[in-house]
Amino acid sequence: MAAQPIVRYRSTRAQKTRQEILQLATDIVSEEGLQGLSIGRLASELRMSKTGVFAHFGSKEQLQLAAIDNAKQIFQKQVIEPSFGSPRGIARLKAILENWLLHLERKTFRGASLFIAASAGSSDPEAVRDVIAELNKNWLRSLQEEVAFARSKRQVRACLEPAQLAFELHSYLQEANWAFKLFGDRNSFQRARQAIADRITSVSL
Amino acid sequence: MAAQPIVRYRSTRAQKTRQEILQLATDIVSEEGLQGLSIGRLASELRMSKTGVFAHFGSKEQLQLAAIDNAKQIFQKQVIEPSFGSPRGIARLKAILENWLLHLERKTFRGASLFIAASAGSSDPEAVRDVIAELNKNWLRSLQEEVAFARSKRQVRACLEPAQLAFELHSYLQEANWAFKLFGDRNSFQRARQAIADRITSVSL
Repeated sequence: MAAQPIVRYRSTRAQKTRQEILQLATDIVSEEGLQGLSIGRLASELRMSKTGVFAHFGSKEQLQLAAIDNAKQIFQKQVIEPSFGSPRGIARLKAILENWLLHLERKTFRGASLFIAASAGSSDPEAVRDVIAELNKNWLRSLQEEVAFARSKRQVRACLEPAQLAFELHSYLQEANWAFKLFGDRNSFQRARQAIADRITSVSL
Repeated sequence: MAAQPIVRYRSTRAQKTRQEILQLATDIVSEEGLQGLSIGRLASELRMSKTGVFAHFGSKEQLQLAAIDNAKQIFQKQVIEPSFGSPRGIARLKAILENWLLHLERKTFRGASLFIAASAGSSDPEAVRDVIAELNKNWLRSLQEEVAFARSKRQVRACLEPAQLAFELHSYLQEANWAFKLFGDRNSFQRARQAIADRITSVSL
């Protein structure tokens, strides 16, 4: 019984350290892609021993996967969950897209978008690439599903192909993020907003 | 006089070697971003000495800049120049966009697009990032200029903002390339074609 508080304290501290490592790993991946991530670099930036970092994750690949999972949870909380308050179809589609833009604008990760950076490097481990591809597919699917729902409720034209509209709407988000990163142009988010509004209006009934 | 052919032969061989190094450098950057590029790696892949590679470029940054310049020249030849055969305005805009898609589809570079990969890493040297940003601005401008010309000739609606339409059209190109790289989905180029055609039709008079 007496040992418990100490164990709990240790465990809390360990969790805190793990979270710190994870946050830095997520930041590095978002800025430089997965190639930028190494146990040695994390240890040096956090002033820990390599063994210390290693103890929390076991391998570089586990660390990469943990960083991706961390980013996924943040995305879920900032983009997907707040959209549940909007009615399904066009309203929820708009909510997801706006949350997504805000998520990019807030520069949640140091380099603005972990998934664009991470998906740039085809030399990344296959398991990691697969996870990234799967996540992106899920997010694209969340857009497609709202479009399909909107079509079933005659909110949009019957001939509209959900995957095509999702492709277009998603492209505006990525372009905004890309232009922001490369040119430092915050106005790009406004361009994406206008493109999204125009495109949705053009297909709405 | 007698020495000339030998000198010329040497110079041709040197040029050929330089071109080989440059091509591999361009491929690596397109696949992994600029971080993937090192003199040591090039030497090892080409079975040359590091000194040998170094002799041709002088520094890693010079090598990066040469790789970018190489990619720029290929882009100019494959995308911009062939569009000069089309009349200015909407016709030339369509030609540039179609050439651009073909350029991406052909997978000219091993990793499909040097500039997307290269612009992902914010840890790249500033001089290199500046060159990449400038090139991308020029290409976006080439789209904007055709839209502006089309507007001046009343080919498109008077209220159309050239930078906004260029943002949207460019986003389809990048999305196609991204989806192709991440999902191996060739269909994405067809989606971009449809998006471009629809968008241009929707603003045409």
